[in-house]
Amino acid sequence: MREDDLLSHVYRRSSDLERAFPWVEAGPGDDCAVVRVGQSRVLMKTDQLVEGRHFVPGTPVAMFARKAVTRPLSDLAAAAGRPIAALAAAVLPPAWRGGRANEVFDALSSVARGFGCPLVGGDIAMTELGPLVLTISIVGEPHAARGPVTRRGALPGDGLYVTGRIGGSFGEGGLGRHLAFEPRLAEAAALADVLGGRLHAMMDLSDGLGIDAGRLAKASGVRIEVDAGAIPLAPEVQGVERAIRDGEDYELLFTAEGEVPGVLAGTCVTRIGRVVAGSGAVLVTGSGMVEISGQGWDHGAR
Amino acid sequence: MREDDLLSHVYRRSSDLERAFPWVEAGPGDDCAVVRVGQSRVLMKTDQLVEGRHFVPGTPVAMFARKAVTRPLSDLAAAAGRPIAALAAAVLPPAWRGGRANEVFDALSSVARGFGCPLVGGDIAMTELGPLVLTISIVGEPHAARGPVTRRGALPGDGLYVTGRIGGSFGEGGLGRHLAFEPRLAEAAALADVLGGRLHAMMDLSDGLGIDAGRLAKASGVRIEVDAGAIPLAPEVQGVERAIRDGEDYELLFTAEGEVPGVLAGTCVTRIGRVVAGSGAVLVTGSGMVEISGQGWDHGAR
Repeated sequence: MREDDLLSHVYRRSSDLERAFPWVEAGPGDDCAVVRVGQSRVLMKTDQLVEGRHFVPGTPVAMFARKAVTRPLSDLAAAAGRPIAALAAAVLPPAWRGGRANEVFDALSSVARGFGCPLVGGDIAMTELGPLVLTISIVGEPHAARGPVTRRGALPGDGLYVTGRIGGSFGEGGLGRHLAFEPRLAEAAALADVLGGRLHAMMDLSDGLGIDAGRLAKASGVRIEVDAGAIPLAPEVQGVERAIRDGEDYELLFTAEGEVPGVLAGTCVTRIGRVVAGSGAVLVTGSGMVEISGQGWDHGAR
Repeated sequence: MREDDLLSHVYRRSSDLERAFPWVEAGPGDDCAVVRVGQSRVLMKTDQLVEGRHFVPGTPVAMFARKAVTRPLSDLAAAAGRPIAALAAAVLPPAWRGGRANEVFDALSSVARGFGCPLVGGDIAMTELGPLVLTISIVGEPHAARGPVTRRGALPGDGLYVTGRIGGSFGEGGLGRHLAFEPRLAEAAALADVLGGRLHAMMDLSDGLGIDAGRLAKASGVRIEVDAGAIPLAPEVQGVERAIRDGEDYELLFTAEGEVPGVLAGTCVTRIGRVVAGSGAVLVTGSGMVEISGQGWDHGAR
């Protein structure tokens, strides 16, 4: 079973959501949901971290706790949001009780505070069998001027951009960048400050540039062309093909109209392609075009 | 390990939360957290449902999906809040993939909509081993006039009240009221409408009247006296002692000053005791007083 199949099912089920519940501005299918509470708009996101799936057993607590918190924060960055607070839920198998449970919650709390997104509540359940599971749910607020950025606004004529460098995030023995990435909250805020309404669509790269560019294209009803030679490769990655398939980059992928700064909050921004009319996501190489929207890391299939 | 030990650890860690993050109005330790987003106050709650722990294997999907959604809604009711939206995260072992996963999400979505709290996002992870885990996180808004109700406002002189009837919720073969309870959202809203500022403190009964009354007493810095003869027993329960220990009632326990209606939104309200100066929670019987704040259902110990 592919995660996307189930997600598609969920999206179909929710297609009338914004009509039936007028306070819902964006439902399933975006990096964050957007709802109205009183006069305010609120961003919501939940993400699970499963031992053996999102981190290898034996990974230090401080590292996987960091990832549990930074994954949903990366989605908040994709919406150009600011963190407000987080909830932490944990399923603890026998190896993770007592002092080790305190250690996990201390680490979660410390990371969350560091990102200005304090833990304000949680839930604990014990199991006899199975992996440690941490579920972090966050609430944020949209950028005051730009409002929430979604995957849905890309327009033909936009440039396609990525922050940082991509590929090879799993690293040697699973202890690579995927554990230590910086959610691009400051970069996204700076983008929204500088570009305002010219920032059309954004998402974070979690499952690989191929799959994720395909999702952005689909959400916006456009075609995305990625120039093979323009992709900024991380030093760990061997070649463009791997960079497209490797997941867990947690960089921002966005489309914008007009000029875009080359550096945002100290992070490089690279133009890697363009938005055109049509559908799908393709890699443009010297020898032609290859469809890449099926290439990436599927959490369900693995 | 007791859940309360870990929770106490988390609370100690968060004692400076409201000072360090001024937009946090209530952090860990209450039924819902309260944060400010722009001009609005937002209630937040997360709750996990673990197969084999919160429902017996073989329970129909519609029943456990309902419980997954109604548990956090019961906490929202305890704050006198109104639902806005929910996020659903699922850990799926091999037996719960494909069509059965669709069935779970359909059931969650349908229940959530029925309570005016639509699913607006989610996350799915697969495991090879371990139970099905559903984590529902909800956002709500406080009562417009009364604001968020917490556990912290009980005052000596208040009456102590409970909605509905308590005890025996597990039922025959585990298919009892704990799966089918009605979160007391309408009752709580009516209470806040009628009592306003006279509604001093509220929580939902999830771990047994003994433990939960003890928690309310501790949070408010008061002593709670429960009259044994006044407790409205469910027909399934055998005696007052069991009613105090049985968990998962999901009724409201609240303290208020002055007159309180005997029926709210069609549900009976019973005065079962009083708030006095001091600490702890005691049962008042014909033969004396018994401390009950240690009596109940600990999710961690079982």
